[in-house]
Amino acid sequence: MSAILQVPADYSNKPLDENRFPLLSHIDSPADMRRLPLEKLPGLCSEIRDFLINSLSSNPGHFASSMGAVELTVALHYVFDTPYDRIVWDVGHQAYGHKLLTGRAARFHTNRKLGGLSGFPNPAESEYDTFTAGHASNSISAALGMSVATNLSNENPRRNVVAVIGDASISGGLAFEGLNNAANAKNNLLIILNDNDMSIDRNVGSLNSYLAHLTASKGYNTFRYKAFRLLKKLHLINDNGRGRILRFNNSLKSFFTKEQNIFEGLNIRYFGPFDGHDLPRIIRVLNDIKEMSGPRILHLRTVKGKGFKPAEENPAYWHAPGRFDPTNGAIIKDSAPGRPAKYQDVFGETLVELAKANPAITGITAAMPSGTSMSRLAEAFPERTFDVGISEGHAVTFAGGLAKDGKCPFVAIYSSFLQRAYDHIIHDVALQDLPVVFCIDRAGLVGEDGATHHGVFDMSYLSDIPGMTIASPRNEEYLRHLMYTAQLPGRKGPMAIRYPRGCGNETEWRKPMRRLDTGRGQLLTPGGDVTVMSIGPIASEAAKAVENAALQGVKAAHYDMIYLKPLDEEIMREAVRSGAPIITVEDASIKGGLGSAVIEWLNDQGYKVPVTRIGIPDKFIPQGTVAQLRHLCGMDAEAITEAIIKAKNTRDK
Amino acid sequence: MSAILQVPADYSNKPLDENRFPLLSHIDSPADMRRLPLEKLPGLCSEIRDFLINSLSSNPGHFASSMGAVELTVALHYVFDTPYDRIVWDVGHQAYGHKLLTGRAARFHTNRKLGGLSGFPNPAESEYDTFTAGHASNSISAALGMSVATNLSNENPRRNVVAVIGDASISGGLAFEGLNNAANAKNNLLIILNDNDMSIDRNVGSLNSYLAHLTASKGYNTFRYKAFRLLKKLHLINDNGRGRILRFNNSLKSFFTKEQNIFEGLNIRYFGPFDGHDLPRIIRVLNDIKEMSGPRILHLRTVKGKGFKPAEENPAYWHAPGRFDPTNGAIIKDSAPGRPAKYQDVFGETLVELAKANPAITGITAAMPSGTSMSRLAEAFPERTFDVGISEGHAVTFAGGLAKDGKCPFVAIYSSFLQRAYDHIIHDVALQDLPVVFCIDRAGLVGEDGATHHGVFDMSYLSDIPGMTIASPRNEEYLRHLMYTAQLPGRKGPMAIRYPRGCGNETEWRKPMRRLDTGRGQLLTPGGDVTVMSIGPIASEAAKAVENAALQGVKAAHYDMIYLKPLDEEIMREAVRSGAPIITVEDASIKGGLGSAVIEWLNDQGYKVPVTRIGIPDKFIPQGTVAQLRHLCGMDAEAITEAIIKAKNTRDK
Repeated sequence: MSAILQVPADYSNKPLDENRFPLLSHIDSPADMRRLPLEKLPGLCSEIRDFLINSLSSNPGHFASSMGAVELTVALHYVFDTPYDRIVWDVGHQAYGHKLLTGRAARFHTNRKLGGLSGFPNPAESEYDTFTAGHASNSISAALGMSVATNLSNENPRRNVVAVIGDASISGGLAFEGLNNAANAKNNLLIILNDNDMSIDRNVGSLNSYLAHLTASKGYNTFRYKAFRLLKKLHLINDNGRGRILRFNNSLKSFFTKEQNIFEGLNIRYFGPFDGHDLPRIIRVLNDIKEMSGPRILHLRTVKGKGFKPAEENPAYWHAPGRFDPTNGAIIKDSAPGRPAKYQDVFGETLVELAKANPAITGITAAMPSGTSMSRLAEAFPERTFDVGISEGHAVTFAGGLAKDGKCPFVAIYSSFLQRAYDHIIHDVALQDLPVVFCIDRAGLVGEDGATHHGVFDMSYLSDIPGMTIASPRNEEYLRHLMYTAQLPGRKGPMAIRYPRGCGNETEWRKPMRRLDTGRGQLLTPGGDVTVMSIGPIASEAAKAVENAALQGVKAAHYDMIYLKPLDEEIMREAVRSGAPIITVEDASIKGGLGSAVIEWLNDQGYKVPVTRIGIPDKFIPQGTVAQLRHLCGMDAEAITEAIIKAKNTRDK
Repeated sequence: MSAILQVPADYSNKPLDENRFPLLSHIDSPADMRRLPLEKLPGLCSEIRDFLINSLSSNPGHFASSMGAVELTVALHYVFDTPYDRIVWDVGHQAYGHKLLTGRAARFHTNRKLGGLSGFPNPAESEYDTFTAGHASNSISAALGMSVATNLSNENPRRNVVAVIGDASISGGLAFEGLNNAANAKNNLLIILNDNDMSIDRNVGSLNSYLAHLTASKGYNTFRYKAFRLLKKLHLINDNGRGRILRFNNSLKSFFTKEQNIFEGLNIRYFGPFDGHDLPRIIRVLNDIKEMSGPRILHLRTVKGKGFKPAEENPAYWHAPGRFDPTNGAIIKDSAPGRPAKYQDVFGETLVELAKANPAITGITAAMPSGTSMSRLAEAFPERTFDVGISEGHAVTFAGGLAKDGKCPFVAIYSSFLQRAYDHIIHDVALQDLPVVFCIDRAGLVGEDGATHHGVFDMSYLSDIPGMTIASPRNEEYLRHLMYTAQLPGRKGPMAIRYPRGCGNETEWRKPMRRLDTGRGQLLTPGGDVTVMSIGPIASEAAKAVENAALQGVKAAHYDMIYLKPLDEEIMREAVRSGAPIITVEDASIKGGLGSAVIEWLNDQGYKVPVTRIGIPDKFIPQGTVAQLRHLCGMDAEAITEAIIKAKNTRDK
C-alpha cells in the first residue's frame, strides 16, 4: 500500500509536431539523443526552449530555471548513461528539460495537473527521476548515498552519480553537511554547481559573494584546467590518480597563485567556472572528468531565463510567471479588478503597519522575500528585515537570539519548509519561552506544487511542543488581528499563525486591528442539531456546508476555533452541553490536528460525544487544484454537508 | 504559566572551603573575578580544575570538555562585562567552569540532580546562561541574533556578544548557515572556535582536517596577528576600521603568502590559532579584538581533559566518565557482574550479527559511534559504517540515497537530536517509501541530561508521517526481533524503532531472532476488569502495576502493542469486546502518541470506551533520575496501579 494518495489520471498523450520539433519529437529516451551527432545538439536545445516557452505560456509552471539549464541537461544525458547513471536534481525547478528528454514530452501538457506530471522530479513518475526534489539542498547528500552504494557494491560498470545544485541551494546547511562528508567515503560523486546568482529571489549570504569571486578568478582556473588536460593527455593522470591530481592541484597552487578555494579546503576537486551555455565545452569537460574517482565539483555559470529575453531581464519575476504571450512575453493577468488580496500580501502590509508602531518588530525570511511578501517590510525597514537565504534552521535560531534581546521577530516561512527547523523551534525558542512569531505561509493544500509543498503537517508537529500557541485566521481580517495580538508587549512564548497560499475572500481587509484573547474561538452560526468546529480559512467551506444543511432542515452550529492550542474549553463545554455530535474541519493532516485535540479533550474530560474528523487523510497528497484535492480528500463544502446530515441522522437513530 | 514542569528543589548551599579554594570561594560573580590582578588568574584556573575533579569524581557529569575550557572561560568573563555582555555556549558540555564563576559553585553539588543545577547552560537558571545549549551548532545563529539586536537598538555601551563553538559543532549545517549569514547584517559578533579536535568521539569531516591545516600554518597567522597589533598600536587601525583591516588582511595575503582561509572566504575575520591554555595571551588577544566591529573568529587550540592526565590521554572516555578516584583517575565501576546490557549495546551487537548475514546493511551515526554503539559495526565492517559528524539532516538524506540504490541503512540517532532531521525523514525518505531503518536511541526520559535531551516527541512527530512504521520493543529480545524484521528484504518504507537510554532487564538477551508481523502486538497478561496497553520498555512498570492491581483483586489485561503505527486493530477490537476501560502507558509525550492513537481509533470506529492516558504531560521536563521523573509525571508502577484501580471503580459505578 503506497503512502501516496491515488488520484484519477485520464489524460491522453499529445505527440509533438514533427515539423516544429524535428529532433525532440523523435526522442523517447536519452538513448535516442545519445545517437545524435554532437553538432545536432544546439538545435535540440533550441527545440527544448521553443517547447517550454510554448507550453508554459498556456499551462503555467516554473519557467526561468529550466530555460537556464537546457544545455546542462542535454550535456548530462548525452555524456552519462542514464538511467543507469543517476542525475539527482536539487529542488527541481530546472528539471523540465530533463522531463522532455526522458519520455515525457507528449504528456507535458499535464504538467502540475491532477493525475498529470509532477512539477518536480518524482521517483514515482519515472526511473530517470532518481530522488524527491522539492526542498532545497538535498541533492549532494542523496547522491553521495547513491555513489557510496555503487562503490560498496563493486558494481560493474560503476554507476556514475551526478548531483546538480544551484548556488542558492548550496548555501543551505544540509548542502554544507553533504560537502563536508563528500570526501569521507569511497565515492565518485560529481557535483554540478549551477550558478545563476539567483535563487527564486536574488541571492544572499557570504558564500554567494564568494562564488562571484571564484568567477572573477576565472583566468587562473582556466589555466589550471588546461594544465590538467595536458597532463591527462600525456597519461600523467589517470582514473585512479586521485592522489596525483590532488598533489598536482596543490603544488600548482603553491607555485602559480595565491588563490584559495573553499571546495578544495573540503577535499573536493574543483573545476570551473565555465560558461554553462557553451554546450560543446561542457560536454568536453564532463567527458574529461567523468571517470575520475573521488568527489569533484564542476562550477557552471548560467543565465536564469536564458533564451527568452523578458525572462533574462527579470528572472525573479519569471521564476514562475503564470500565463504569458509566447511571442513577446506579455503577461496575461488572471486577476480582475477588485479581486481579494493574497494572504501573503495581507501579511506583508500588516507587518509594515505594525512595525511602524512597534520598533521591536523585525522580520525574517529564508530566501522567500517575494513569496512571503516579507519584501514589503524590507522596503519600509531594510535594517529590520533579514533574508537569511535557504537556511530555515538558522532563521529560527537567529530569531531566538533576537527575541532573547528584546526584539519581536516575525519569521515567515512556508509550512513545508519550516519542517527543516523543527528542532530549532523546540530547542532554541519554545524551551526558553521566547516570543517568536511564526507566520506559516502556504499552510494546508497548496495545489499544483504537490506533495513536497503541501503544508499539512504543521499543526501536528507544532502541537506536541509545550508552551506553543497555534492559531489560524478564518480570513484576512483575522490574520491581522492575530498578528496584532502576537506582537503585543508582554505576550509570552512562541506563537504560530498559519495561513494558506493564494487569495482570501475579502476585498476590504484593511480594517482596524484588535487583540484576540488567546485560546478563544467564536460562534459564527448558532444551531443545535450538529456542531461544526473549523480552524482557518476552510471556515468558508464549513460555512457553505452549514448553509446547505440548513436548506435540508438540519441546523448546525458553526464555531471558528481560531486557536488549535490552547483549545477553547468554553466552546468545548458549550458543544458538550448541546448534546450534538461534533464535526471538525481543518486544512491539515487529521493526524494530530484539531480533530485529534477535540477527541482527546472529550476523552480526558470523560465526555462521550461522537466526532467526525474532516481533514487531510494520512497520505501524501499529489498535485492538483486546491478544489480538486479538497474534493478528493472529502473536505469540500459538499463533503462537509454530507457529514452534517449523516451526523444528524445517526444521532436521531 | 511556564512550559517547564515545576519540580521540588530542597538542596542547601555548600560553601567552598576557603583554605582549599582561596580565590574561588570569594567569587560570587564574574565582577569579583574582574577585580583580581591578572597574575592571580592561573591560580584561579587551578582551583577550578581542582574543584571540578573533586566534585565530578563523586557526582558524575561531563568532565573533559569543561577541563579543557577553563582558561577560555576565565578569560571571557575577565575581558567581557558579563552578564551585560553575553557569552553563548554551544552544547554546553564545557560550561561547568562558567557555572562556578557565576555564583553557582556552592550549589554545584546539585549538578544534574532533580531540582538542582542543570548540566547545561539554562536561561531559566541564571542570567549568565544566555541561551539553551543542549543541541550542537546553535551558538553562532543565536549570538548573531543578539548582536544584531544590540546594534539595531543602538544600545550604549554596545553589548558584546561572544559565541563559543567547538570544532565538532562547527561542522553542523546550522553553524554553517550562521557563518554564511554572519557578515550580512550589522553586528560585532565574536566567535570563539574551541578546537580540541574531538567531539564526544574523534571528529570526522573535511572541515576538521582543514582546521588542522590552519594549525599547521600557524607561523603565517601569528605573523599576521603581530602585524595587526603593530598597526593598531600605530593607530592605523581603529574600532571602526573594518574596511581598513579587511583590506590589510587581503593585501597581506597577496604579498606574503599563498595561504587560504575558509572563514575569510565567508567575510569573517580570522585570528589564530592560539594556544587556548595560554591565559595571558588569550586575554591580550581578546582585548585587542574586543572593540572591533563586524564578525570575527578567534581560533583556540585546547586539550580536552587538560590538567587531569588520564582525561588528556583518553578524552573520549572522559567525556562523561561516571564516578572515579580523584587522586589517580581510577574508574569506579557501578556495574555488578551479570548486569543486563545497555540497549545501545544490544543494538550494536545485533546489528553486527545481522550485517554478517545481510550484505545490504549499512550503519550511519551522527557523531555518536560510542553513544549509539554503532562503533561495533564500525569495528566489524568499517567500510559499511558511516559517522557523518554532527549532521543529523545529512545522515538521513544520505541514508535515503543508500536505500535508493539497494542498501539497507540503519540510522542510529538520539531521539531529541533526530528532531533536526524531521524534514529529511518526510521529504527524503517517507515520500519515496524508502526502507530506511531509524534506530532511535535515548527515547523517552533520559534522566540527568534534562530537558534538551529527553526523547519525548518522536512518537508524535513521526506518527503524522504517511507510510511510517513506528515500533518500540518491550525488552532487549524484542529489540532484536524488530531489528531483524526491519532488515528483511522486500519490507517497504521507513521504519522507526525507539528504545531508551540505559540498561534493560535481561542478562540473557542473545536469543534467536524472528520476524514480527507489522502492526501486531501481544497479550502479555489476560484479564477482564481493565485493559492496559503499553508500548516500549515501560511495559515493565505496567506489568508491575498489573501485578499490584491483581493483589488488590482487580484483574487487568496487559497488552504490549509493540507498534504505534500501524496500530493493532485486532487488539483494539478485542479490548472493545471486553468492555473494559483502557489505560495506555508510554514513555513519550501524551500529545500524539499511543494514547492519542487509541482514542482516535475508538472515536473513528464509533466506540465509546473511556481511555486514561499515562505518559509525559505537555511540559518540558527538567533533569532528575528516570525514576524520579517518572514519579513526577505519574507514569511509574504506583501511578499506573492507581489508574487501574480507579478505572475499575469508575466502571463499577
